[in-house]
Amino acid sequence: MTASARRQIPNWLDVAARSHPEKLALSFGGQQWTFADLHGWTAAAAVVLANAQAKNVGRIGILSANRPGVVFAVHATTCISVPVVPLNWRQTEDEVAWQLRDAGITVLIVDEDRAAVAEAASTKLPVAIVPITELERLPAPESAPGKSPRIALELEAAVIYTSGTSGRPKGARMTNGNLWFSAIASALHLGHNHDDVWLAAMPLFHVGGLAILFRSVIGAVPVILQERFDPEAALAAIDDGATLVSVVPAMLQSMLDARGDSPWPPTLRCVLLGGSAAPPLLVKGCVRCGIPVAPTYGLTEATSQVTTLLPDQTHRKWSSSGLPLPLTEIRIAAETGVAPLGEIGEIEIRGPTVSSGYLGDRLAESSDLANGWFRTGDAGYFDDDGYLYVVDRRDDIIISGGENVYPAEIERVLREHPSVVDAGVIGVPDKSWGSRPVAAVVWSGDLDRADLELLQHCQEHLARYKIPDRILVLDELPRSPSGKLLRRTLRQMIGESLERTTDEI
Amino acid sequence: MTASARRQIPNWLDVAARSHPEKLALSFGGQQWTFADLHGWTAAAAVVLANAQAKNVGRIGILSANRPGVVFAVHATTCISVPVVPLNWRQTEDEVAWQLRDAGITVLIVDEDRAAVAEAASTKLPVAIVPITELERLPAPESAPGKSPRIALELEAAVIYTSGTSGRPKGARMTNGNLWFSAIASALHLGHNHDDVWLAAMPLFHVGGLAILFRSVIGAVPVILQERFDPEAALAAIDDGATLVSVVPAMLQSMLDARGDSPWPPTLRCVLLGGSAAPPLLVKGCVRCGIPVAPTYGLTEATSQVTTLLPDQTHRKWSSSGLPLPLTEIRIAAETGVAPLGEIGEIEIRGPTVSSGYLGDRLAESSDLANGWFRTGDAGYFDDDGYLYVVDRRDDIIISGGENVYPAEIERVLREHPSVVDAGVIGVPDKSWGSRPVAAVVWSGDLDRADLELLQHCQEHLARYKIPDRILVLDELPRSPSGKLLRRTLRQMIGESLERTTDEI
Repeated sequence: MTASARRQIPNWLDVAARSHPEKLALSFGGQQWTFADLHGWTAAAAVVLANAQAKNVGRIGILSANRPGVVFAVHATTCISVPVVPLNWRQTEDEVAWQLRDAGITVLIVDEDRAAVAEAASTKLPVAIVPITELERLPAPESAPGKSPRIALELEAAVIYTSGTSGRPKGARMTNGNLWFSAIASALHLGHNHDDVWLAAMPLFHVGGLAILFRSVIGAVPVILQERFDPEAALAAIDDGATLVSVVPAMLQSMLDARGDSPWPPTLRCVLLGGSAAPPLLVKGCVRCGIPVAPTYGLTEATSQVTTLLPDQTHRKWSSSGLPLPLTEIRIAAETGVAPLGEIGEIEIRGPTVSSGYLGDRLAESSDLANGWFRTGDAGYFDDDGYLYVVDRRDDIIISGGENVYPAEIERVLREHPSVVDAGVIGVPDKSWGSRPVAAVVWSGDLDRADLELLQHCQEHLARYKIPDRILVLDELPRSPSGKLLRRTLRQMIGESLERTTDEI
Repeated sequence: MTASARRQIPNWLDVAARSHPEKLALSFGGQQWTFADLHGWTAAAAVVLANAQAKNVGRIGILSANRPGVVFAVHATTCISVPVVPLNWRQTEDEVAWQLRDAGITVLIVDEDRAAVAEAASTKLPVAIVPITELERLPAPESAPGKSPRIALELEAAVIYTSGTSGRPKGARMTNGNLWFSAIASALHLGHNHDDVWLAAMPLFHVGGLAILFRSVIGAVPVILQERFDPEAALAAIDDGATLVSVVPAMLQSMLDARGDSPWPPTLRCVLLGGSAAPPLLVKGCVRCGIPVAPTYGLTEATSQVTTLLPDQTHRKWSSSGLPLPLTEIRIAAETGVAPLGEIGEIEIRGPTVSSGYLGDRLAESSDLANGWFRTGDAGYFDDDGYLYVVDRRDDIIISGGENVYPAEIERVLREHPSVVDAGVIGVPDKSWGSRPVAAVVWSGDLDRADLELLQHCQEHLARYKIPDRILVLDELPRSPSGKLLRRTLRQMIGESLERTTDEI
């Protein structure tokens, strides 16, 4: 057999629908779809999307809250072999427009609440807008699904935007193989029980949410989809039989708060805890309550999970992110080469779940991938048993309410204001959000107008959650001779300035 | 990342030993090995085998009954990237000698009972003999395993000899990828529970036995290994917690006989029934007793399972071999192309578990693999739900004037006649056509009208070339206790009957 034929596999939704036609595939609100239903709805969505591509063939974007149409759309793009680009729906018109262009999106699926932003963002672009409701209509009998083409593992399947040190998010390209191997590795690591049910309450534009859809269809596991995270709704789904859940620390904390002393059901067997470093107190609290928490180190560029600490290890390794998934290799790079056990260095990963690179002119960064190793930019070390400990996240990312906020992106926007000479952003701890951005700028304009102008400027160009809580004006920002922003010094300066301000009040 | 880097994965035994060091990996007789132990013993075996290769690098053969050293040897060959060739230990010196030459074996691992045959077979060949006991000694502390090289999926991992219509067995070449994808597909299809335990009582030189070793290590599932099949020992292992078992019909029948009316434990969740067509009475008997039987169509050239009927479907599809495994495509080839549902034709398969071809001068047969499709030579059809029915194994098919004639099809037509109680068809050699069908029936009607009525019936329902040349009436057809038609006995009976008729003339 030729190698290329070998790297194609039967369409995974075809397989699930044939093997488990009557099994629940998706539930949302009061509605339910079996795998046979999902197959039918997906086939109908594929027809709509293929037609929408008639004028311009490009990638297919989605700008929508979590809802069934997103699931149909994602699987439909697999059927028609077009990459899907789930966009963060909290973004501004500018941000969306930039990504539409960057990803060469020619069809954009939008929900009602995002219709205006989508319309405005796509002005002058060759983008066909498809209301997501068009994908959620009962499929006509004549659109009964046939056999889908095989899935080529090397083919690009999705683009997910992630951090950029350059200030713009970078579109990480994922192949069908990345998604498939990730789902398989996850099943091998977590186990794969026939009565498993995934709860998807994370946004589907995050790799942590999107990956659930593929684990579901590849493993024939039902998904309970929720429009947005709500601790009570998430707990209800768990009481209702969800066995696997994926959350970020803020979500888990709010679930703990909501549940109080009442017990969690024994059917819940794994709570993947990712998104940002797992707070040790949170992990310990879960261990104490018998909640099967599984701290996870994940990356968009690795199609979600890289390491996961299995629940049966949390009692003795609670500050670790666990063992590498079965198909992923990790090494800790020190200046002198590969670091010995116990020594901190940059985490590098390799394996079939690792993205083949980024979109567009950020190709230079795929030098990360020399020799197959992806340099994560994160720092960590291994203990003697091979468990990973992540000590610092890349580029001082600010994680605010579970969302990644990239200082570099806010800095870029600030610098675009004509009166801003320089700008720097750090995260400061925040009780409600975990962390919030605070900015410092060097200002050349009228000092009295700085606050107002900067706020207006940010509101125009940044999603609400990215707008800094405070913007301080400084005479100069601390920079190294080579021009690198010294964030630690800036953090001190901002700290002192905030204290002074507080004192004055 | 380069494509070749992408097709390498961490050594699966390294992963299992790191993730589940204390979990049982192997039990044999009274001895037990954890995954950490198995890792250590395998590393030690790898050193022995690498040293034995010093003079001549070639494939590594095993001529031994099931025992722990076979397991260590198989995993050790993965570590040193040398293909393993498990040989049927029932073979004669001549047969072994032929395979040693055919597979270019330079190291042969042998148990005591096979030492003389191995010695004699390897005379004049550059083969180093390694007693299997050398692999079963407690590894020295200094041979503690390091990290094994990654496993290249495209690399040849094993050769398994299979039957050849040409007279000599053919060595089917299996890559690491074939073995890995087969284990994954099996886990996806059967489920993958953390408390699973495989019973391996099949010979490890059969693909059905060997595949268990890879499912075990890739999924971190313990194996209970037994030296030879014994119904009482197999039942004891099941009572002891084996959840997954692989057997051929005769084995299962003897287990049913041995167990009698006593119940089977509920922990047993799947009895893979392969090797030859599952006798319907045996399957029905299991269904009646609540035994989770899973009739399976498997092939050496597909690294074992091709289709498996899951236990929850046996009550309504008991004569089917089930659905294709998730990574395997199947089509039914008819003269006119791909056969529609319900029509019998040759079973062709494609996918990442399919062997890349045979050893040596039988390469011409890899023309089977044109377009990625492997022609099994077996006949079958799909029902409306996509379940496969295997109607004839390749050796039973009658090739008449170049046309495939399927005994099962003729038998079905014959049985549809109201006076036919039972029917069996075999091929008899024919000078003009190569082979021609001859039938035997049990007839409940007027004996004088049998010939005429059967001929008319066949003419109405069968193409001319499929109509049997002779239809004999017998008192009874030879069937096994489980209901399987004994074609060899039928062949003798028909032969005698034809001779008698000829004599009478």
